[in-house]
Amino acid sequence: MSLPIVRTVADLRAQVSAWRQAGLRTALVPTMGALHDGHLTLVRHGRELADRVIATVFVNPTQFGPNEDFSRYPRDEAGDAAKLASAGCDLLFAPTVDVMYPAGFATSIDVGPVTSRWEGAFRPGHFQGVATVVTKLLLQAGADVACFGEKDYQQLCTIRQLVRDLDIPVQIEGVPTVREADGLALSSRNAYLSPEQRQVAGQLNRVMRGVIDRLHAGEAVDAVLSAGTKALLDAGFTAVDYLALVDALTLEPLTVPAPGRLICTARLGGVRLLDNMAV
Amino acid sequence: MSLPIVRTVADLRAQVSAWRQAGLRTALVPTMGALHDGHLTLVRHGRELADRVIATVFVNPTQFGPNEDFSRYPRDEAGDAAKLASAGCDLLFAPTVDVMYPAGFATSIDVGPVTSRWEGAFRPGHFQGVATVVTKLLLQAGADVACFGEKDYQQLCTIRQLVRDLDIPVQIEGVPTVREADGLALSSRNAYLSPEQRQVAGQLNRVMRGVIDRLHAGEAVDAVLSAGTKALLDAGFTAVDYLALVDALTLEPLTVPAPGRLICTARLGGVRLLDNMAV
Repeated sequence: MSLPIVRTVADLRAQVSAWRQAGLRTALVPTMGALHDGHLTLVRHGRELADRVIATVFVNPTQFGPNEDFSRYPRDEAGDAAKLASAGCDLLFAPTVDVMYPAGFATSIDVGPVTSRWEGAFRPGHFQGVATVVTKLLLQAGADVACFGEKDYQQLCTIRQLVRDLDIPVQIEGVPTVREADGLALSSRNAYLSPEQRQVAGQLNRVMRGVIDRLHAGEAVDAVLSAGTKALLDAGFTAVDYLALVDALTLEPLTVPAPGRLICTARLGGVRLLDNMAV
Repeated sequence: MSLPIVRTVADLRAQVSAWRQAGLRTALVPTMGALHDGHLTLVRHGRELADRVIATVFVNPTQFGPNEDFSRYPRDEAGDAAKLASAGCDLLFAPTVDVMYPAGFATSIDVGPVTSRWEGAFRPGHFQGVATVVTKLLLQAGADVACFGEKDYQQLCTIRQLVRDLDIPVQIEGVPTVREADGLALSSRNAYLSPEQRQVAGQLNRVMRGVIDRLHAGEAVDAVLSAGTKALLDAGFTAVDYLALVDALTLEPLTVPAPGRLICTARLGGVRLLDNMAV
């Protein structure tokens, strides 16, 4: 069965309106394509919360920095559409850049302190790009619920803050990270890893689980994080951008063991791998 | 007849949803209160476009600068409610600051170049405050149409750009300025004028009409604007923040006579008077 695809906001809204008039609830799953089982889990989760599921595929240029991988980001619409159909998706919204950012477009949204550390510090402007495109997608679709992966945890926190602050009428659902057998979080960028790098990549989550065990045992936060960073470098990671215990909502660092979130970005050559877990 | 008043987003949305389910269209008229006939004209205009009209009264702290008149801005909810009822308004939304900006609120919206000159230059941060609160009000209400006065012309251009850029599902209606017999544009801040200043204030629109006549006659833009500025100072204005011929959409200055907008802000003591007219 082939998946219906719309490319304009008018066509998208017409479908959501028709469903709403028929008494059906709609879930939205925004993606940048290059879909893997993590995305398909979002679609299946959306189906549990709503009667119809719309996925969006849009590689958003405004959330990439000038030296990042926008132009080489993997794109495969036909493959994505087939995967979405098999997961029970009802509609694909795949707009062009001109539809999302017509000539004269000028607005940007800043979600404040939750965006300033961690990924925000390493990728200036990234979360303004995310916040602006997510606002547009949410308002274009007018869905009842929208599903985002916990894998990009700071992004999820940013979107929750954005939706609350601007009173966007949608329910935001965070969906747990899907992992490979060795613990590696699924990510479209894993495709960039060489076979040797892929072996190292699995150590990221293993080291993080070790850090959490030591935090749960009451060891000092600073010492445990330093040891975790050293373990990642010893395992073969090129650099550790950050490994931090943070408040689960504000993402401010925690200096004593407390319920929160362990977040990490480690590099393998030019590839940045993100992961996070509840503490 | 007394006007129903709601103070929470949930109560506002419940009323709009009930009207929508009954097949009724809703118009929104955002205001900061201190209502005059210009506001009531917006309500009457809303009634022509929709079946029900909601006015909002919220003196938005984030659009006032640190040395501006937030604390002394005129407030009279009972008087405002009576005027709104007489103009055919169906509901007043009058939230507190805590409802609009609960603890932890952090998001702001920048609408780009249209906000940078003119009022944006004289009031840093003003249009970010306007854009953010208007986005919230539009998304809180979910009305079909929203009415704004042409009197705050740069604000109207900012809101049009914002709604287009973020795909906010609402129709924006600009409504012509209502004037006193001598041409003075109605404004809540006119209440700050002394009787002597009020006499001078009427010269603002008279001088602008003279400028437009000379532009229509094909005189050089620079010379006409300089003469207009001098005429305002001669008439008794304390200062002229700007008198400019601009593109009607981008607000970029026009240096040769062309269809556009003549915009002006002139001061009388501490009061800034704004006006604008089509050219």
